[in-house]
Amino acid sequence: MVKKGKGHAGLRENFHRKRLVFSGTVDFRADTVTLPNGKKATREFVDHPGAVAVLPVLPDGRIIFVRQFRYPVGEATLEIPAGKLNSASDGLLKRVKAELKEETGYTAAKIKPLLSFWPTPAFSSEVLHIFTASGLRGGAPDPDDDEFINIEILPFEKALGLVKKGVIKDAKTIIALQAWKIKLLEKK
Amino acid sequence: MVKKGKGHAGLRENFHRKRLVFSGTVDFRADTVTLPNGKKATREFVDHPGAVAVLPVLPDGRIIFVRQFRYPVGEATLEIPAGKLNSASDGLLKRVKAELKEETGYTAAKIKPLLSFWPTPAFSSEVLHIFTASGLRGGAPDPDDDEFINIEILPFEKALGLVKKGVIKDAKTIIALQAWKIKLLEKK
Repeated sequence: MVKKGKGHAGLRENFHRKRLVFSGTVDFRADTVTLPNGKKATREFVDHPGAVAVLPVLPDGRIIFVRQFRYPVGEATLEIPAGKLNSASDGLLKRVKAELKEETGYTAAKIKPLLSFWPTPAFSSEVLHIFTASGLRGGAPDPDDDEFINIEILPFEKALGLVKKGVIKDAKTIIALQAWKIKLLEKK
Repeated sequence: MVKKGKGHAGLRENFHRKRLVFSGTVDFRADTVTLPNGKKATREFVDHPGAVAVLPVLPDGRIIFVRQFRYPVGEATLEIPAGKLNSASDGLLKRVKAELKEETGYTAAKIKPLLSFWPTPAFSSEVLHIFTASGLRGGAPDPDDDEFINIEILPFEKALGLVKKGVIKDAKTIIALQAWKIKLLEKK
């Protein structure tokens, strides 16, 4: 059913029954919902506490990336530092500082919100909050046990070129680099 | 463990055992992997066949969006038309045309690849391929049964403003709009 127009209360799917099918680092759910036409349907999704990511910008404009193996896509990906919240009420700034320090060793004098988004609203509840970090000072990284990470520092335009070439394919990293590029272009 | 430098063969996690924990519209898996240090770990993820999305650009530059209820995030979201592939070998262009027609009723004279990305490489195998569509001609939408969708057509700059304000929060929609904006700014 397709309707033209702005009203969208009639699109709502209402919660009917929760079903937890797996509980681990993230939870998998297959809830039953009531559709706008009264029928029942199943909505399968990852129940996720949310996450933060940070675009660390060095004084010369270069960006600090981390490379780590992402099993679901089978590649060691180039991404900006990020981490899951422990709970929905976890302090965002605190998590940003902790992830930046753990994964890269850097501390930041200034951390600002850039953009928040849903990576996959169709089958995950995750909200990801991206921040920018500047006034960076290097130090020793302190990753979690069993976390294997390489640090790679790239000029901003080179990184943006890797997005266009399809080498950088991670959503949060693309969104952060594009948003930063638009800021830079609009400043001119 | 953090290493500086370019080599990243040492980051690889090797497949050890597959475990399917739920099978539905998408599959949920909790595989066992062998870490670079030889230890075992569990990797929970959505096993996804991939998807396509399309940025439909009208001759006057306005963009066609769809609004639909996304249960995992509890909102009727504004997104560009998109759909899951039936299998990894599904023809991308064919799927783009089909989704555009089903969800909006429009057919396109020209469809071009814009960018491919991973929405959530940490816990989903999904690759999402974004295309642009132009030379659009309106018609009657033909959505799937039990699919409830509104069509909303917005000027491009207004849509980009909604990204900056945090109203448009869907990853593929943000990436498509930002990539289009950078193309327009760089043309000047």
